[in-house]
Amino acid sequence: MSLFVRDARVVPGDGTAVLPRASLRIAGDRIAALGVDVAPAPGDTIVDARGRVVLPGFVDAHTHALWAGDRIDEWQRRLRGESYLQILAAGGGILATVRAVRAASEDQLADGLLRRLGHMLREGTTTVEVKSGYGLSTEHELKMLRAIRAAARAFPGTVVPTALLGHAVDRETGRDERHFVDTVVAETLPAVHAEFPGIAVDAYCEDRAWSLADCRRLLEAARALGHPVRLHADQFHRLGGVDLAIALGARSVDHLEASTAEDLARLAAAGIPGVVMPVAGFHTDGRYADARALIDAGGQVVLASNCNPGSSPTSSMPFVVALARRQLRLTTDEAIDAVTTNPAALLGLEDRGRVAAGLRADLVMLRHHDERQLGYELGGNPVDLTIAGGSIVERGSIG
Amino acid sequence: MSLFVRDARVVPGDGTAVLPRASLRIAGDRIAALGVDVAPAPGDTIVDARGRVVLPGFVDAHTHALWAGDRIDEWQRRLRGESYLQILAAGGGILATVRAVRAASEDQLADGLLRRLGHMLREGTTTVEVKSGYGLSTEHELKMLRAIRAAARAFPGTVVPTALLGHAVDRETGRDERHFVDTVVAETLPAVHAEFPGIAVDAYCEDRAWSLADCRRLLEAARALGHPVRLHADQFHRLGGVDLAIALGARSVDHLEASTAEDLARLAAAGIPGVVMPVAGFHTDGRYADARALIDAGGQVVLASNCNPGSSPTSSMPFVVALARRQLRLTTDEAIDAVTTNPAALLGLEDRGRVAAGLRADLVMLRHHDERQLGYELGGNPVDLTIAGGSIVERGSIG
Repeated sequence: MSLFVRDARVVPGDGTAVLPRASLRIAGDRIAALGVDVAPAPGDTIVDARGRVVLPGFVDAHTHALWAGDRIDEWQRRLRGESYLQILAAGGGILATVRAVRAASEDQLADGLLRRLGHMLREGTTTVEVKSGYGLSTEHELKMLRAIRAAARAFPGTVVPTALLGHAVDRETGRDERHFVDTVVAETLPAVHAEFPGIAVDAYCEDRAWSLADCRRLLEAARALGHPVRLHADQFHRLGGVDLAIALGARSVDHLEASTAEDLARLAAAGIPGVVMPVAGFHTDGRYADARALIDAGGQVVLASNCNPGSSPTSSMPFVVALARRQLRLTTDEAIDAVTTNPAALLGLEDRGRVAAGLRADLVMLRHHDERQLGYELGGNPVDLTIAGGSIVERGSIG
Repeated sequence: MSLFVRDARVVPGDGTAVLPRASLRIAGDRIAALGVDVAPAPGDTIVDARGRVVLPGFVDAHTHALWAGDRIDEWQRRLRGESYLQILAAGGGILATVRAVRAASEDQLADGLLRRLGHMLREGTTTVEVKSGYGLSTEHELKMLRAIRAAARAFPGTVVPTALLGHAVDRETGRDERHFVDTVVAETLPAVHAEFPGIAVDAYCEDRAWSLADCRRLLEAARALGHPVRLHADQFHRLGGVDLAIALGARSVDHLEASTAEDLARLAAAGIPGVVMPVAGFHTDGRYADARALIDAGGQVVLASNCNPGSSPTSSMPFVVALARRQLRLTTDEAIDAVTTNPAALLGLEDRGRVAAGLRADLVMLRHHDERQLGYELGGNPVDLTIAGGSIVERGSIG
């Protein structure tokens, strides 16, 4: 299988200059050549971009795309004025999804995830991180991770699983919170370690979720077993998660809506990327992380969909970019790097996130001839073509 | 050509109860039968909805989808703090598009429109109103209307043209504003009347656009020639357009961001629909028409994309609905009627805007099984299938 994409406006990402009229040869799953004087080889399938923009495939580094049930009734309550944390306190929110996930089989979960991954692929996302975290028990967390693994095998793009072992506390077991956390650390974590060695371990440091001390305990134990760690911090309350993540050498700190400029400066100085998810702010309460300040302090921003049934009902990276241009005041180049190069690096995938010879051929062709249209246009799907691992996997409006 | 759609969740619109498991027969361009016990006929193409939502095709009753050039540079200026009216005063905004439209041929304009109509169709819009208004001379307004007519003939859906003769004032002619308006009324309007009898005539009542008195003069002359009239009013400034539209018996008043509750109550009492376009507020200044108050006063709301290169860069009715649920506080049922039944009535198209036997088979099948997901989900394209005039014209993710 080989492809030749002619007459593309290639935006390579990572600060590399745009090639206004370039061609690409793709052989197997790799970009074999890129430039203005690249020629097709016999047998190449030809794609005529006719000046349209070609970008690296989007890398969505923070999703909760594996779930069961829906949270539409909860949204009606929020439209009537109840807050996310009020609903969580009343047993709704994440806990409603936990009940639905526990009731679903591994196959049902994998099927639902694969359907959502298909939507993402059509919208240009070729690499997707997917978290567990709606199981809240060893059995159901393992079921989620196995479902992610099963969906990954059937998906033409790439799925990176994360074990979100500290997502919420199950208060319905009749035991106390300390017992719950003890079980996660002493039983669930070792079981995940045995079956998914090297998987990243994640926690949600927030009121009514996991306390700072419990996050520290879980993530230190995970690190001792050789797992990279990530942390959801400062979404609603600033509980010290940024400094914990710095102390632990976390792969990322995710959310940051309640972080101060000083927090973001320390994060930048530590070289840890901040994962910013503006759809959650748009959908819930209009609060956004100060991604501009993080970049201005020399830090690295990753933009992610946060795709989940409650606080971020989207699978569209183009919509994330549209919000980032407006609400977060990122430039087009910053926003493109934040959905390609930066998240690929965060996930440890050095073979993608840019358009360059030798890298994996994960590519998006927009319907636009100017990459600034990506963040300008609102709603809809601007992707004409997605290439994952060298194969055309989704065809939009060629013509 | 005949189609049979089985096992659909049909949302007929216009207050008619949802049919959770119904089938539809489509013969020619009409819905032949709808119900739980409808059977396919020999030779029908079968579409298995498997419980997915089927709605009337979206009717977008206010667009400026015919243009040339782009306004991306202007957007960069607005992101740096310049206002829409400041840019207009400096010769940008609409006037930049006017220059590009004048430089384009009728064929180029028609090709660009047809491409955009294709995007809309993929997003479920089967009927599109398209305005002239970037010509600002008899020659170029006629060129625009002819381009709309040419694109309409090639489009599988329906295009309704509107002559937006009072959109802006050309201050570059070296003559004064009075002379410009005189020419529109004495020359352009009669020329449009001769070639497009019965077309709706529209004006933009706003500071630095058309004054209330000039709008009155144009629309009275249009009405005297037998044209229905519409009016853009109260987008930024409340200049009295609502009462002018009521006095003229206008088909609609469009924008209404600056209208008072009393204005909206008078509009409701007059039985004139208000066309509300929340993407413009989202994209420019965060101001929205109080659609909730208009409905609560007994008025009728039409939601439209306002698709144009400057103030509303979208062709997505699902995104319009997502904003209407949040920013305008419309219910799901209200929002669905406002993108189907109500705009069809506004455009005088009594054969569509609902799902019922005998009506035109313009239909949308979502990927969702619950119509509330339409406004819940953000970004992307939730449309699996569009049927226009009885034919499957766009196929998304069937499966």
